[in-house]
This record gives sequence, C-alpha cells and structure tokens, in this order.
Amino acid sequence: MDFAITPKMQKLLADIQQILEKEIYPLEREVGENGYRATLPKLKAARQKVKDAGLWAPQIPKEYGGLGLTMMEHGMVSAVLGQSLLGHYVFNCQAPDAGNMEILIEHGTPEQKKTFLEPLLRGDIRSCFAMTEPEHAGSNPTWLSTQAKKDGKDYVINGHKWFASSADGATFAVVMAVTNPDGPPHERASQILVPVNTPGFKFIKNLSVMGHVGEDHHSHAELRFDNCRVPQSNLLGKEGAGFAIAQERLGAGRIHHCMRWLGICERAFHLMCKRAAERELAPGKVLGTRQIIQMWIAESRAQINAARLMVLEAAWKIQELGQREARVEISCIKFFVAGVLLDVLDHAIQTHGGMGLTTETPLAAFYAAERGARIYDGPDEVHKMVVARQALKKYGVQVAT
Amino acid sequence: MDFAITPKMQKLLADIQQILEKEIYPLEREVGENGYRATLPKLKAARQKVKDAGLWAPQIPKEYGGLGLTMMEHGMVSAVLGQSLLGHYVFNCQAPDAGNMEILIEHGTPEQKKTFLEPLLRGDIRSCFAMTEPEHAGSNPTWLSTQAKKDGKDYVINGHKWFASSADGATFAVVMAVTNPDGPPHERASQILVPVNTPGFKFIKNLSVMGHVGEDHHSHAELRFDNCRVPQSNLLGKEGAGFAIAQERLGAGRIHHCMRWLGICERAFHLMCKRAAERELAPGKVLGTRQIIQMWIAESRAQINAARLMVLEAAWKIQELGQREARVEISCIKFFVAGVLLDVLDHAIQTHGGMGLTTETPLAAFYAAERGARIYDGPDEVHKMVVARQALKKYGVQVAT
Amino acid sequence: MDFAITPKMQKLLADIQQILEKEIYPLEREVGENGYRATLPKLKAARQKVKDAGLWAPQIPKEYGGLGLTMMEHGMVSAVLGQSLLGHYVFNCQAPDAGNMEILIEHGTPEQKKTFLEPLLRGDIRSCFAMTEPEHAGSNPTWLSTQAKKDGKDYVINGHKWFASSADGATFAVVMAVTNPDGPPHERASQILVPVNTPGFKFIKNLSVMGHVGEDHHSHAELRFDNCRVPQSNLLGKEGAGFAIAQERLGAGRIHHCMRWLGICERAFHLMCKRAAERELAPGKVLGTRQIIQMWIAESRAQINAARLMVLEAAWKIQELGQREARVEISCIKFFVAGVLLDVLDHAIQTHGGMGLTTETPLAAFYAAERGARIYDGPDEVHKMVVARQALKKYGVQVAT
Amino acid sequence: MDFAITPKMQKLLADIQQILEKEIYPLEREVGENGYRATLPKLKAARQKVKDAGLWAPQIPKEYGGLGLTMMEHGMVSAVLGQSLLGHYVFNCQAPDAGNMEILIEHGTPEQKKTFLEPLLRGDIRSCFAMTEPEHAGSNPTWLSTQAKKDGKDYVINGHKWFASSADGATFAVVMAVTNPDGPPHERASQILVPVNTPGFKFIKNLSVMGHVGEDHHSHAELRFDNCRVPQSNLLGKEGAGFAIAQERLGAGRIHHCMRWLGICERAFHLMCKRAAERELAPGKVLGTRQIIQMWIAESRAQINAARLMVLEAAWKIQELGQREARVEISCIKFFVAGVLLDVLDHAIQTHGGMGLTTETPLAAFYAAERGARIYDGPDEVHKMVVARQALKKYGVQVAT
Repeated sequence: MDFAITPKMQKLLADIQQILEKEIYPLEREVGENGYRATLPKLKAARQKVKDAGLWAPQIPKEYGGLGLTMMEHGMVSAVLGQSLLGHYVFNCQAPDAGNMEILIEHGTPEQKKTFLEPLLRGDIRSCFAMTEPEHAGSNPTWLSTQAKKDGKDYVINGHKWFASSADGATFAVVMAVTNPDGPPHERASQILVPVNTPGFKFIKNLSVMGHVGEDHHSHAELRFDNCRVPQSNLLGKEGAGFAIAQERLGAGRIHHCMRWLGICERAFHLMCKRAAERELAPGKVLGTRQIIQMWIAESRAQINAARLMVLEAAWKIQELGQREARVEISCIKFFVAGVLLDVLDHAIQTHGGMGLTTETPLAAFYAAERGARIYDGPDEVHKMVVARQALKKYGVQVAT
Repeated sequence: MDFAITPKMQKLLADIQQILEKEIYPLEREVGENGYRATLPKLKAARQKVKDAGLWAPQIPKEYGGLGLTMMEHGMVSAVLGQSLLGHYVFNCQAPDAGNMEILIEHGTPEQKKTFLEPLLRGDIRSCFAMTEPEHAGSNPTWLSTQAKKDGKDYVINGHKWFASSADGATFAVVMAVTNPDGPPHERASQILVPVNTPGFKFIKNLSVMGHVGEDHHSHAELRFDNCRVPQSNLLGKEGAGFAIAQERLGAGRIHHCMRWLGICERAFHLMCKRAAERELAPGKVLGTRQIIQMWIAESRAQINAARLMVLEAAWKIQELGQREARVEISCIKFFVAGVLLDVLDHAIQTHGGMGLTTETPLAAFYAAERGARIYDGPDEVHKMVVARQALKKYGVQVAT
Repeated sequence: MDFAITPKMQKLLADIQQILEKEIYPLEREVGENGYRATLPKLKAARQKVKDAGLWAPQIPKEYGGLGLTMMEHGMVSAVLGQSLLGHYVFNCQAPDAGNMEILIEHGTPEQKKTFLEPLLRGDIRSCFAMTEPEHAGSNPTWLSTQAKKDGKDYVINGHKWFASSADGATFAVVMAVTNPDGPPHERASQILVPVNTPGFKFIKNLSVMGHVGEDHHSHAELRFDNCRVPQSNLLGKEGAGFAIAQERLGAGRIHHCMRWLGICERAFHLMCKRAAERELAPGKVLGTRQIIQMWIAESRAQINAARLMVLEAAWKIQELGQREARVEISCIKFFVAGVLLDVLDHAIQTHGGMGLTTETPLAAFYAAERGARIYDGPDEVHKMVVARQALKKYGVQVAT
Repeated sequence: MDFAITPKMQKLLADIQQILEKEIYPLEREVGENGYRATLPKLKAARQKVKDAGLWAPQIPKEYGGLGLTMMEHGMVSAVLGQSLLGHYVFNCQAPDAGNMEILIEHGTPEQKKTFLEPLLRGDIRSCFAMTEPEHAGSNPTWLSTQAKKDGKDYVINGHKWFASSADGATFAVVMAVTNPDGPPHERASQILVPVNTPGFKFIKNLSVMGHVGEDHHSHAELRFDNCRVPQSNLLGKEGAGFAIAQERLGAGRIHHCMRWLGICERAFHLMCKRAAERELAPGKVLGTRQIIQMWIAESRAQINAARLMVLEAAWKIQELGQREARVEISCIKFFVAGVLLDVLDHAIQTHGGMGLTTETPLAAFYAAERGARIYDGPDEVHKMVVARQALKKYGVQVAT
C-alpha cells in the first residue's frame, strides 16, 4: 500500500491548482450572485484555457482524448478540483457526465458513442442520469416504478424521477427503467439513452435543495416520462443489466465523490485559518488567538488527514484487489468522509460568523450543495449497515438488508 | 417557579394552532417555490383572518390594540407560531417589527408614535433594524463605524450595515450610529429612525444566506448610508442611549427567539415521526421500524423537552427577578436551544432522505433560515463565555471579555 | 407545574448541606484509600449526628420514624446528598435499602415488618435486592431462570444472580424468583425475603466494576442459590406479584437516581470551577483563563440545568398524574441525565489532569461507580425505544419491544 | 509512503498473535481478580516461552539481544501486543522500561549499561521514570521543583513526584531533576539514575487511578526524594540535557502508545462483535440484530481504520523526514487515537451491559487504565494547540503556548 505521489503527478496537481486559483476561484462569487447560467460564457473561456494547457478530461483514456489517469491519480486531481464547486466542470470531469462517459466508453455501441459520447468528450453538450424516484426509498435501488415497454422497435417509457442532477441544460438522459418486471430483482432494470427533446420527456422543475434552486449544471431536476418513445438501439449494454452497469461505477464514483469532498474540506480549512488570522475581535486582537478556534482548526486538521488516508486506502484496495474486496472500505469512506466534510464546513462557517452564511465565501454554497452527501449514493445509515454486516458475518450473524 | 398553562391560555393556544394549520401551513410551499413577495396577497388575507378572530398582535399592550400577553404567555404563543416560518408575520409579532414596536412604545415621542408606530401596529408597513457592520465583529457591539453627526437640526449618517433583516420592503429603519464618539464605549451610539426613502439611504442588496437569497420580510440586507440626513427629532430615546435601549430588549428578545425555535423543533419532530410512519423501505415495512430512527426520535424528544423547560425557567426568572439576575439562564438558552434546534432539524432532514432537502417539507427552509441561530444575537461561543464568567467569578477568576 | 422550593425545604436542604460538608466530605478520601469497611465506625458516628439533628430517613413516613417528605421534596434532598457517594448512606436513604423499606412498608406482613423492616429503619442492618441474572439480558426483565419451588411450607430457591448491590454485609436479600413458570410473563415471578445466613445462600464474590472491587455497602455481588430454603411466609405481597411490586417502585426510584446524579453533577461542576481557579499553568496564570475550560464550564452548566428541570418535571408529573402518564418523561430522564452525568464527570476529570484520575478528588470514584448509569435500570437504548414507541404510536407505528 | 507489510513481518505478527491468544489472554482474568503480583510466576513462564520462540524484546537492536525491528515494524508488533494489557510486558517491550532501555543504549556509560541496562534487557529487573510533579501542570514540562544539588561527588535530590508508572517493584528510577536552575528553561533539568533502595528514596503509595489501585508493573506511584544521594556518575547524558533526551523519545514513544491503543481498539471491536453475536435478547434473537449495535460496530470500524492509517503515516514521516517534520502528525494522533480508543471502549462496554463493567472481559480494565490516554504525555488540549499553532503560523498568527 503505497500512497506516494510521483513527481509527474506533483507537477500535474500544481498546474491544476494554478488554473483553479487564477481562472476558477474568481468566478465563484459571480455564480453565487448571478447564477450558473449567466456565468456560462466565462466558464466556457476557462474550459478553453484548460484545453489549451493540455489538462482536459483527466479521467478519460488517452485514446478518447483525456489524460488517461489511473483511479488513484484522478482521485488526487479530484481533491484539487473539489476545492471549487466549479472545478470539475471546467476540466470536463463533472458528475454525472464523467460517469456517463465512462459507461458509454465501456458499453456504448459505435453509433451511441458517435451520437452521445463524442460531443460529451468535447464538452459541447451535457447529460444527466435519472434513477431515483420520489415514491421509493433510494436505499432500495431495486424498487423502481418507471417502466420501459417494448413496442415495435421502440421502448415506451413511463415514470417519475427526481434528483436527476444537471438535467437542466442537458442534451440527453441515461434513464434507469424496468424492462424485465418478472426478472430477479437485480435484473429487472435497464439503462436507456433518452434525448431530452424526445416527446414525452417532461422537465417538471429544478428542485430547491436546502433552500437553493440551482440552474444548469448546478441543479437537480424532477422529470416525468409520459409515453416517451425511443428506439431500442438506445439501450445501453444488455437488457436487464441496468444495475450491473450502475454497480460497476459505484466504487470509482465514491472515490471521486470522496476526493472531491476532501477538496472542499481543504478549501474550508484554508478559509477558516485565513479568517482566524484576519478577523479582529478588537483592534489588534485576531480571532485566531481564541482557543476555541484553535481547537476547531486542530480537530479539522486531524479529521481531514484521517479522511484522506481512508480514501487513498480504499482507492488502492479497489485498484489492487477489486471493488468487491474493498466493500467495507468503500462504505466506510462514504459515511466517514461525508461526516468530516459537514463538520469541517460547519466549523468554518461558524468561524466566519454572519459572513459565513453569505456568498462572500463559498462555504454556505458548499454546505447547501453537500448536505446531501450524507444522503445521496445511499444514506450513511445504509452504508453503516453494510459495514456491520461484513463484520458480523464472521461471527455468524446475518444482518438483514 | 410555576409553568402551568391556564385554561384561558390553553384556549388561546388552541385557537392559534388552528389558524396556523388551516391558513398558514398551506402557504409555506407556495412561499418556498414562488417566493415571499408573490405570496403577499394570500398572507394579507391570512392576516385579516387573524384580526377577525381577535388574535392580532398578541405581545402588544391592549391599549395599543394587542392582546396584552405577559412575556411568558407570549412565549407560549411564539412556540406555537414558530412552527411555521410565516406564523409570526401573520400575527404581526414578527422580528424585527415586534422589537421596534416595543422600543417605540417605550421610548417614542408622540409624533414618532404617530408616524412610525401606528402603521406598524396596524400591519400597514414594516420596519428593519440596522446595527451589524461587516467590518466589525458582532460579538463586540460597542465597536461601530457608522456615525451620525449633527448638522443644523439634522443628523447626517454615514456608514455600512448588513444583516439588516427584512429591510427589503420596509418603510423605515432603526439605525444604530455613533453620535458621541468620545463617550464611554457603551454610551457612544444612538438609535435613529430613518425612512428608507431618505436620500443617501442605499439598499445594496439582499444577502444570500446559506445559498438562499430571500425577499421582502424573509431577507437580510446590506445597506449603505451616504450623507443620509434626518431631523434630530428622529432620535429614539436619549442621545447615547442606543445600547441601553438595545439591552432592554435583549432578554425578552431571546425568550421569543428561543420559543420560536421550539416551535420549529416541534414541527420538525412531528414531520420526522410522520415520515417514519409513512415511508416504506419495502412494501409494508415503514422507516419507523428501524432502530436508528427510533433513537433519533427519542433523543429529539428529550432534547426538545429540556430546551422548553430551560426557556420557561429563563422567562420566569426575567419576569420575577429581572433580566440581570437571569443573565446565566438567558445565555444558556441562547446556545443550548440553538444547538437542539439544529440537531433536531438535521435528524428530521436525514429521516426524509432526499425529500428533506427540497421544498416538499419546510425542513430545508428552516435549516437555511436558522443555521444563523448559532451566530446572530451573539455567537454561541460568546454566550458560553458569559456563563463561564459568572460561574468562575464565584471562585475569584476574571474571564476577559 | 410549580417547581418553587418552600422556605421550610430551603432550611432543610441547607441543614443537610452543612452536615454533608462538615461530616461526610472529610470521609470520602478515607473510603477511597482505606475502603468502605474500614471507615464504617466513622460513618456510624456521622449517622448518629444525622439522627441527633432530626434528619434521619427523610423519605420514610413520619409514623415509621422518618421525615415524611413527598417524592419531589425527597428528590431535592437526594440532589443534595448525591454530592457525596456517602451521603445517602449516612441519612439512611441509600439504595437498595430505601426501596426495600418502601416495599416492606407497603406489602410487608406485621411479622415481616418486625423482623426485616424495623432494624432497617433504625439503620442496624442492611439489605440487598437480587434480580439480575448473568445469563439473561436485563432489558428483558421477564426472562429469569431463578426458581422458587414450593416444598411443604417452604420455598426452595435455585438460581444465579449478580449485580446484587450491597449484598456484602447485608442481613437479608429480597430475591426475585419464578414461582409460577406457567403464568403470563409478567406474573411468573415473586419477591421473597431471604436472610443471608440461610443455608444454600452462597455469596460468590464482589464484582469488580470498572476496575474497582468495592466492599460492604459499595459493592455489587454475584450470588448463587443452591436449594436455599425459606418459609413461604417470607413471600412479599402476593405470589406472582414480583414484577408488579417492582414496577411500583420504578418511577420514584428513577427520580431518586436522577436527583442523586444531579448531586454528583453539581459536585463535579464545583470541583471543575475550583480547579480552574486554582491550578496554575504558569506562575500567575490559572487554568480558568483558557477558553476551552470556559466552554466546558458553560456547557456543563447548561446541561445540568436542563437535566434538573427535566427531573423536576417528571417528578411533578408522577405526583400529579401518576407513573403511567409520566412514562415518556421517566424514560427521557433515565438516558438524558445519565448522559449529562457522564459528560460532566468526563470534563471535570479532564480539567484536573492526572489528579482527576486519583483519589485526591471523588471524581474518578464517581465515574467508576456511575458508568453503569447508562446500563442499570434498563440501558439507555431500551429507554429510548420506550420514548420512540410512545411518539410513533400516535402515528400508527408499532415499535416492537 | 508505503504501508505494505512484508511477508516476513506477516509471519512475525502471526506468531506473536498466537502466543498472545494461547499464553497471555488466559492470564488476564487472573490479573483482574487476583492482582498483578500474584500472577507474576505465570507471567514469568509466559516470558520464557517468548524467549524460547525467539521473539524477546522486538524493539531492541540485535546487538543488544532484541529483534532489531524498525519503528514502523515495532509499531505493528505493538498493535498486536496491545490487544492485552499484559502483552508488552511478556515480550519485554513495556513502558516505561522500553523507553529507559532506549535512553540507556543511546546515552548510558559502559558502567551504567552494565548495572542498569543489562538486567533490564534480560527482564530480570524493572525500572520507572519520575518526571511529573503534583504541584505543576504536566503541560508545562519545564516547570519542575525537584532539585539535584551537587555535593562532593554526589547529587542530593529533593522533590515530590507522582504518576511514576511501575515504580512499585522497580529496581531503579530515572529521575528528572533541576540541576541548573539558572539555565534557559529547556536546559535546567537532567536525568539521573536512582536505585530505589537509595536512602531518601521514599515510595509513598500507589495512586488509585479511576478507582483502581494497581500493583507491580500495573501501577502509578507517588514518590518523595528526601536528601536522596547518588553519585554524579549516575547522570544520564549531559547535565542539563534532561529535556533534550526526553524529547528524543517522544515521537517514537507516541507511535508505540498509539499502536498499543489500536491493539486495544481491535480487541474491543472483536469483543463487541462477539457479544453482539452471542447475547440473546430473547430466545433466538441476538443483540447483533439491533440496528443501534450495528451502527456502533460500523462507526468503530471506520474510526479504527482511520486511526491506524494516521499512526502509520506519522510513523512513516518520522522515519523518513524526522521527528520535527512530523510534529503535526504526532500531535494529531495523540488526541485523535486517544479519542477513538475511548469511544470504541465505551461502545464495547455498553454492548456488554453490566458484564462490560466486570472482569469477565478486559474492557473495564482497558478503560480504567486508558482514561488517562487523553491526559498523559500532554493532554489532548495541548496537542490541539500544537496543531493549530503550525496551521496558523502559515497565516501569520502566533499561538501562545
């Protein structure tokens, strides 16, 4: 288990950090105050700079035009980019597009790649992933109502989805729908590519999340599918393989989420220290002289270090032993790092006082965007049960799912 | 120390609960999705129903047209109204107007009462309070830069304020400004009435708070005063009495904030139980059968009960022994109840999963609006030092402020 | 709900506080270093002073020689006495004797009263209560193996008990044993009076509790009953009424435990403040100038105040509405106050540094003696389920026991 | 940064684990019930088996008769041995002897090595370290009162020490005493070797720690030095180098403490799972089916994993970059791992119910022995300030010590 960072990676990370600070941080407040859509032209300009610098799409194999980083390498990149809510987008490795590109590379037909993957890789379009349904607990992913029925050469999709992140402004959706209702639970659903301009694809609204209705890439939509008809050639992978394909992405997806969260943690830690150093309580006496702030700084430092090591270990284990062997580690980081993230953010906000609630810093936006970290991709409580199940199995106890 | 609720009060609280559920809860989602301003006509209609029911302005003395409740009685009302973020407004006992009315009744000249108080009492206008400055720590309230200099018969005000709650849509502001820069620290500032249409009164923007830029009554503004000139007759109370007047309101103000928070707690508790009872994890198996949810419910119940008793005790002590004797209790409830509030909200949100982040429930709006509970009116850490100072004083230790 | 303390009670509490400080505190360290048994003569002398002062057995009805206090009054006494681990014993209201006296007064036959109750009331003997069995979870009190079979005029008892507090040095035990194995679960067991010198009553050992093997009144024993034969006239109350009788004591028992814990909390709080005031970190700079200590003091103050009010409310509710109506409050205080107790002790110990671990203060002894507070009388987790069950019942959810 | 375990080390760790389980675990309960001294003969027999197996003194260089492990390797051994409070002793790498051997190897004269080191290496004698004084805060190690004055060829030592671990039964003490009272604070004290049979060396008593008065190796003594005279040739290293020598040991000392704590964590985790699997709440329904226990198991697993990685990283950094560069990591593990240790123990105890308080498991003994983990070697709060100081230094803030 070796967590060393090669000189080549150190150089790469430093280059990315520089673009982040120079091109991306200055846009954060603008997004906070004017919204994401109004800032798109400037974001596009920043994307061009990334392309020019040869840093585009770090996670994508070289033959598809990316940097071809390994999972651990891209994890480190993700921790740098995560320092800004805009970082991944500007480098074209943002969720959910990054996951969709990965699926399309792995399972897409040549035609699907041409139509859906190529413009994604170029950054010309965006996509979304529609799985969660308001009527069913996300913790039970096999319980879906959305159906795709065959009719001639088409699938006809009917259903209700929400938390379809970044659907606003997307060109197509990857939709999880039941195609084989009588199959075993984990083989009932398929992933189907659905252009958003297909008749019957209904964008209901962007959800307000923690009081914040986002837009464009920073948004979570409610969608309906009313007799939404797409050709069967839009099926991704095999019929009934929806979960299997989703599962494949899970491990890497969590690593990247967690590394992104670590980026947020480091940014929050930096802002907390900076505020402690600059805010005067009385002339000449800064906040950082107060012991309670010092305690928060120290505890945050230890927590972030712990979290980082756990994510690296999980990534290493996935890479060396495979996702299945790393099950416990993957679930541990999901809840441990999410907990650290929200704790650190909370302390950083409190250190800033009223200012921490505003758009003067990215902290409030981080919190609003990431309170869901303890919920999405399976709530903490479900991941804890996964860990307990593995631990207790060795002692002969069956933990019910 | 008697916390019994008289039959008369029980009746009053039940009547208010009924209006709340019937007239106010249905407006919450509309405010969440369309905004406060768009909902004003319906809020006005609800206010009329409150007037018709003879429940208008419960905290205001009868001679001024209110119900004339004592502090403890109004505290109980506040705990009922607090269940909705719209409750206090509809009954005309919302911050900061309630505090401003109280000051005007106590310290206003007949002319000030006619111009500023009477339309407030009728609910025809709203007001705001401008004290906090971005450049100075709120925890040191004697450190202000905004100045009001005498010039002929006028004050000329220059300064920068923020977190002027509800300034958007207000008709006038009560402005805390230094009038006696050479006086002792606590006698430097005065409170001055400033109509918002006075030249030099500049509304900069509504602050985004936890990602949410509100509007109208639900907002916090940044303001600038650029040679803003008002007649000296707009001085509230005596010159240099700004802090003394602000102090008078503090005890009662905290009780009402805390009781309002308890209202939020009870609503969140109710929603958590309801969700636990209704959400199916699998067909026929509801969330409330999970032990971890049961733990959250039990812990929340105990915490809320504790918080309620502490607030009642503090209110009782202020009423019987005066604000000074109740200093420790007042500071204790500030941080204890704020802590309970955010804990209970957090558990209620987590119980709802993704839905808890949206406007399907008021929980996310509660959280975004009240993360500041640990910051405004003095951050928790300052109140803890107040409590420690009193405790250690008996042992001969001086805790520096 | 009135928590006022009458002048008469104030006087009584002050008198008790004085004896506590003058006669009892000086014995604590002796007990800590030499053991309980070696200190018995001095404890006996202190008991005599209590008798002389007319303060003996505050909880016992006047006709039985006590002060005849109500539950709330004795609760307040208990909070004073609880400040020392020796307090209750010196006033003859220590567990488990207090409970045994209460049962004997209520259910004892004249002969039982003469033999068992009267010497207890005088303080001439001690007793114990043997219910818990190592083989069965204490959270399921109907699941017992100890049996008492009728044989002629006798019961013949066989079984294994532990956590029989204060059995070391006791003259008799109240033993919970199954007499009606085929009855409904709650009607199977009876309470039987068993002198410790009965053949077959086997004292195995005093248990080490958190590393501390106590002795005499401060001890928890493991016992075995091997064909232990007592006359059937030693049955307490009706056959099969064992649980019903135990239940009767529960509410009041928890109030007194909780009030006793509050006494410990106040003592720990006092010691923490005292240490903060006296311990120099460097010449002239005391520990109490550190903000982290101030935070602990403030948080402890708020927690203790909260806990006290909750216990008073529960006591009031039991007194006014009965134990059944106060179920939620009784369970809430069980876990809430135990949690506060251990938190406050932990902070007080940490404030003392290494000294907090020794017998220089009673803190370590408090912790060792009361870590069990979260376990005995039903673990916290069981009480939380009781609270959740009541809350969820209103929403139609059945929480399984 | 490579945390891989070589096959050679895997073999070694497995061999040690086997001896631990076979020879040492069976002695734990005996020590718990009969005391350490009574168990010495059996411990001696176990030590012989370790010697026979060629595993004696793993941390000692080969030329001195040990296994010559690196710091990271011995750290891993320590994590295995730490699973029992008897583990290190049986392998002759127990504190404080291990540290004293290290100092003697590094700084001892040939004569000192012959007299003091060699019998320690053989395990024939034990030693202690006397630094902490009751009158001065341990967090300020330069503030000592014990003095060693030169008189002819001797030092005459006067002073008062406590928490001299394992002094009971030791043959000599390493005493920290002021020899140069007028030197700079960190150059005032020296380390002096003092045989316990020297006149004036007064063993006052073994301290009760968390209610437990230990004995022999498991003990912490109070000592007095009354004109205790030793030859100046007993000076260890240079005069005035007392702190410098103590500092050298610090980094490695903390790694070994932390690894030992991780051993305790793993044992506690194992016992918690085992209990969850075996304890029936009702016939056929084990404790491990309860979700709250599952949460504790999962959270403990994540915390222990995090703690282990942090200790490995700190060890690696000390080894590669030196103690100074690893300052932040060393302080982080001190408080982070101590916190995890006590949390995990607390959950493991609670899982066992009343049994968790007794000597049926080693959990209570672990807790009593290790509550001090948050205090000794610098309280958590001091280490947090070290971390904050380093973090804030980069932002120009000086954190006072």
